[in-house]
Amino acid sequence: MPDEGRLDPPIRTTRIHEGTIVNLRSSDYRRPDGTVVRREVMDHPGAVVIVPVDRDHVILVRQPREAVEAYTLELPAGKLDHAGEDPLECAKRELAEEVSRAAAGWRDLGGFYTAPAILTEFIHCFMATGLTPVSGIDADEDEQIEVVEWPLSDLDGAIARVRDAKTLVGLMRLERELRAGC
Amino acid sequence: MPDEGRLDPPIRTTRIHEGTIVNLRSSDYRRPDGTVVRREVMDHPGAVVIVPVDRDHVILVRQPREAVEAYTLELPAGKLDHAGEDPLECAKRELAEEVSRAAAGWRDLGGFYTAPAILTEFIHCFMATGLTPVSGIDADEDEQIEVVEWPLSDLDGAIARVRDAKTLVGLMRLERELRAGC
Repeated sequence: MPDEGRLDPPIRTTRIHEGTIVNLRSSDYRRPDGTVVRREVMDHPGAVVIVPVDRDHVILVRQPREAVEAYTLELPAGKLDHAGEDPLECAKRELAEEVSRAAAGWRDLGGFYTAPAILTEFIHCFMATGLTPVSGIDADEDEQIEVVEWPLSDLDGAIARVRDAKTLVGLMRLERELRAGC
Repeated sequence: MPDEGRLDPPIRTTRIHEGTIVNLRSSDYRRPDGTVVRREVMDHPGAVVIVPVDRDHVILVRQPREAVEAYTLELPAGKLDHAGEDPLECAKRELAEEVSRAAAGWRDLGGFYTAPAILTEFIHCFMATGLTPVSGIDADEDEQIEVVEWPLSDLDGAIARVRDAKTLVGLMRLERELRAGC
């Protein structure tokens, strides 16, 4: 990962809330110039997003996202079981759980922070190819996921329609891969 | 905005924490099938990200992001003063505050949710052109922002280097605009 410069870990931390997905804390950081700043930070173990390409389409999922009170169209994704989990193993598990596929080919498209001002989450982005169906893996309990096979010939249409940041990054990275391959 | 289907607002909410940037709550939602699910949700007023293009370069900012313990390279951005603020007015203010520029041309490139599973934040993305210097506007107190003029001839290099989701979306949208204009 390119390095724009590291910052020191916090000098003081107060726990605010231990939640089911994120933990919230207030931390004080000493900057290189000596000043101390206070930040509210949400800890997150990290996540993966997968760009599954099957011949002439990319596989998306439509699902309810209560936080934004809407259904959204997204690439398959999920969070690491713990901060040290291998992202590729997590991607394989999520691909099976969310869209019932295994992949022969995996390619790292580069990762990114979701919201570096407030959230520690880093999302690893993989392209998955050579897909085959798998079954018998139960999705998480209260996920209601509808698989949407979106034609690559209308990738423009997906990029215009999607309203989820990680999915837009994944689809535009895919578009660049396809263009480079032409 | 394309509509994938709306969900009802929560039927019950418990406040967990009122913070400086985000408020955290636990809410119960009744789904169309009648089941009730509980979600921890962070409320956020929304934000803007700006793609400022000045002849042969795009203007980025390098700044400390304590939450991820790193400096990051990002497009200028900022949050709405309140949930009802006009996003374009917010974009004009942030462009002046962060990189001391005003713009003659503004174009809406489409917005997106930062993390629709946990955060209400929606980011409006604007391209700004016809830039002129402005001065005398003080940036927020503890922001330490370095302006980076990145050449459009190496937009590839920026897309490979940046690790911030909203900035990747903005730069790849810019790349598509430039390609469409050629």
